Amino acid sequence: MKSISEISYAAARGIVEANIKHLTRVETIDIDECPGRVLAETIVARLSVPSFDRSAMDGYAVIAADTNDASRDNPKILNILGELHAGDTTTETVRRGECIKVATGAMIPYGADAVVMIENAERNGTSCKIFQPFTAATNISQAGEDIKEGETLLNQGVVLDAGKIGVLATQGLTRASVFVKPVVAIISSGEEISEPGKELKPGTIYDVNSHTIASVVQENGGVPLILGIVRDNLEQIKAKIIEGLNSDIVVISGGSSVGERDMLVNALEGWGEVFFHGVQVKPGKPTLFALVQGKPFFGMPGPPTSCLIHSLLFLGPAIRKMGGLRPKPLRTVTAKLERRVSGMEGRRQFLPVLVKGNEAVPVFKKSGTITSVAWTDGYIEIPEDSASLDKGTKVIVTLF
Amino acid sequence: MKSISEISYAAARGIVEANIKHLTRVETIDIDECPGRVLAETIVARLSVPSFDRSAMDGYAVIAADTNDASRDNPKILNILGELHAGDTTTETVRRGECIKVATGAMIPYGADAVVMIENAERNGTSCKIFQPFTAATNISQAGEDIKEGETLLNQGVVLDAGKIGVLATQGLTRASVFVKPVVAIISSGEEISEPGKELKPGTIYDVNSHTIASVVQENGGVPLILGIVRDNLEQIKAKIIEGLNSDIVVISGGSSVGERDMLVNALEGWGEVFFHGVQVKPGKPTLFALVQGKPFFGMPGPPTSCLIHSLLFLGPAIRKMGGLRPKPLRTVTAKLERRVSGMEGRRQFLPVLVKGNEAVPVFKKSGTITSVAWTDGYIEIPEDSASLDKGTKVIVTLF
Repeated sequence: MKSISEISYAAARGIVEANIKHLTRVETIDIDECPGRVLAETIVARLSVPSFDRSAMDGYAVIAADTNDASRDNPKILNILGELHAGDTTTETVRRGECIKVATGAMIPYGADAVVMIENAERNGTSCKIFQPFTAATNISQAGEDIKEGETLLNQGVVLDAGKIGVLATQGLTRASVFVKPVVAIISSGEEISEPGKELKPGTIYDVNSHTIASVVQENGGVPLILGIVRDNLEQIKAKIIEGLNSDIVVISGGSSVGERDMLVNALEGWGEVFFHGVQVKPGKPTLFALVQGKPFFGMPGPPTSCLIHSLLFLGPAIRKMGGLRPKPLRTVTAKLERRVSGMEGRRQFLPVLVKGNEAVPVFKKSGTITSVAWTDGYIEIPEDSASLDKGTKVIVTLF
Repeated sequence: MKSISEISYAAARGIVEANIKHLTRVETIDIDECPGRVLAETIVARLSVPSFDRSAMDGYAVIAADTNDASRDNPKILNILGELHAGDTTTETVRRGECIKVATGAMIPYGADAVVMIENAERNGTSCKIFQPFTAATNISQAGEDIKEGETLLNQGVVLDAGKIGVLATQGLTRASVFVKPVVAIISSGEEISEPGKELKPGTIYDVNSHTIASVVQENGGVPLILGIVRDNLEQIKAKIIEGLNSDIVVISGGSSVGERDMLVNALEGWGEVFFHGVQVKPGKPTLFALVQGKPFFGMPGPPTSCLIHSLLFLGPAIRKMGGLRPKPLRTVTAKLERRVSGMEGRRQFLPVLVKGNEAVPVFKKSGTITSVAWTDGYIEIPEDSASLDKGTKVIVTLF
């Protein structure tokens, strides 16, 4: 087992990125469950859309040549053979001197090559008068105008949204093949962690990390699988990790003391490759990334703010890549620092801030405090080489 | 029934906005199902977090006063009473001259008021030496440092994300009360519309609008309920609308011909108030908005591009308001028009474009073509008073 200790933020991101593979498992689901899913097949049109020439207007389907000499003074009189509504099928043919009344969307009858809007004709019983010439194709939506049979409609890998799902629907498809959502096994470790829903024992705190991680997983297109809490016991931890390896990614949080952190590394001994154990980031530092039996494995810091921020920074992008989603578009605002903040030589800081008007107000209690994140709007990044940022410095706030 | 015919885009948006009420129905769900949901209760802390003073480091819990005179030359020797791990409960008390070894996260034993990091002490069997003074509170996370019992943690109406779900978890909550997602009944009308999954009859097209609307509904936090296709028959339309009124919003698309559009207005006669029927927007125009038995009712244009764009413009924001979500943050890019486009006096145009490099390439086939949306990146808005926009004009593209 190769073990690299502390590395920079950029290097850690790069290593995670390089070791995550797009899952190739697919599932077939109803097209109405497809928003946000990633198409696993390439869709080629098996039907032209529309599959027939149709009228774009309520009017009369005519032979354009019949109207060549029509004028206000010398209207062309056409015999109305009948009427076609949208959805009707017809075997009738329009011949010279004839027309068929058609509704918007109705199939153009054989023989006709133009539609004269109802407003441009004057009906008189079973005939109508046309007062001007019309060229062929007037007011006709041609077969294949939207989609031509045989053309590629959607490529494998596109993210399905309303428009693309509409394209699937044009082909009469009710189901589509999409890539599965990555399943992320979530474990919390520590003797001091209690399960929610039960009375809190003295000296313990409720498990926060399982639930913040589960939320990050869902926000990035994954499916969380909370496996519960393990105690600081090598065999228990190993057994839970083995259970987790049925999923696509394993995340374990906690191990706040030095002994506990060592235990995790011991648990992984001989199973896989630890790429880093410690990232130069504040808050949080002891984040571990490994491949265990080929599966990405994250060891997240125990303190809730650190765990959540590292999950956003490392886990979220990994899930997206695995699921075939593009990186999340970051929403940012610019603001001025409300007060001076200290940098930290050699560590990149992600400092939670409130945005008040055009000011970014740093709010960070301790890495163990979930309210540092829950009650703020986003974070600012303070680079590794900044001694400090002065009050009034223009900063970019990445919104949560 | 009051019937207003064609109105401006801005007026139509305003009328919809003014007539949509935030739903007050709530449901109680697992906190891990809460990402993106709107909290329906105000959460007040029933527990301080942590609920006890705890050690922030691996070290020795001491009485700070004992270390007052400690120095390298004259270290203070303390008797080690025992050891506390995270999660342990203790009844032991530290007295002058004593200490207890504590792990990170462990409860501070009674009597002690500071923790000396393990690196700053030298253990020798059952005692340890301290070489410098420490002030009270050193390396102690105070009870209530994150959350104080009785304080308001989350207000009703906040959208739950990872941080806020973490706050729920600190309190040991497994479930939370959230506002229900608006249920949107979706109806397609028209004789020419066929259901997907069945063979296409000549002269018909598959139903696209039900599925694009269902996608818009989900993208805006609603639940779609597809009620299927109705034919151009007043009684059938009425019956389907009655079925739809069990939901929170009813949307019917189609009615492309003049006669069909009139039928919808007739169907609503005496049931409610039609606020507008026709919006000065291109593509699409005949959009109808009404309150029917108090429920918002949308009549969307039949052509797929018009229907989808109007659903994005009018239905999406309505669902968000009803569900208590803020307006969707629009993602935009600026680009230069690749070619001149014509304005349309008195109608606001939403013109689908591809973004290629820094150019916005107008791509619009016809309002009936779903590929106008599916194969583009977003749209540009051309105001009602623009005669045209020249090639090279800087435009803002709102991404789909």
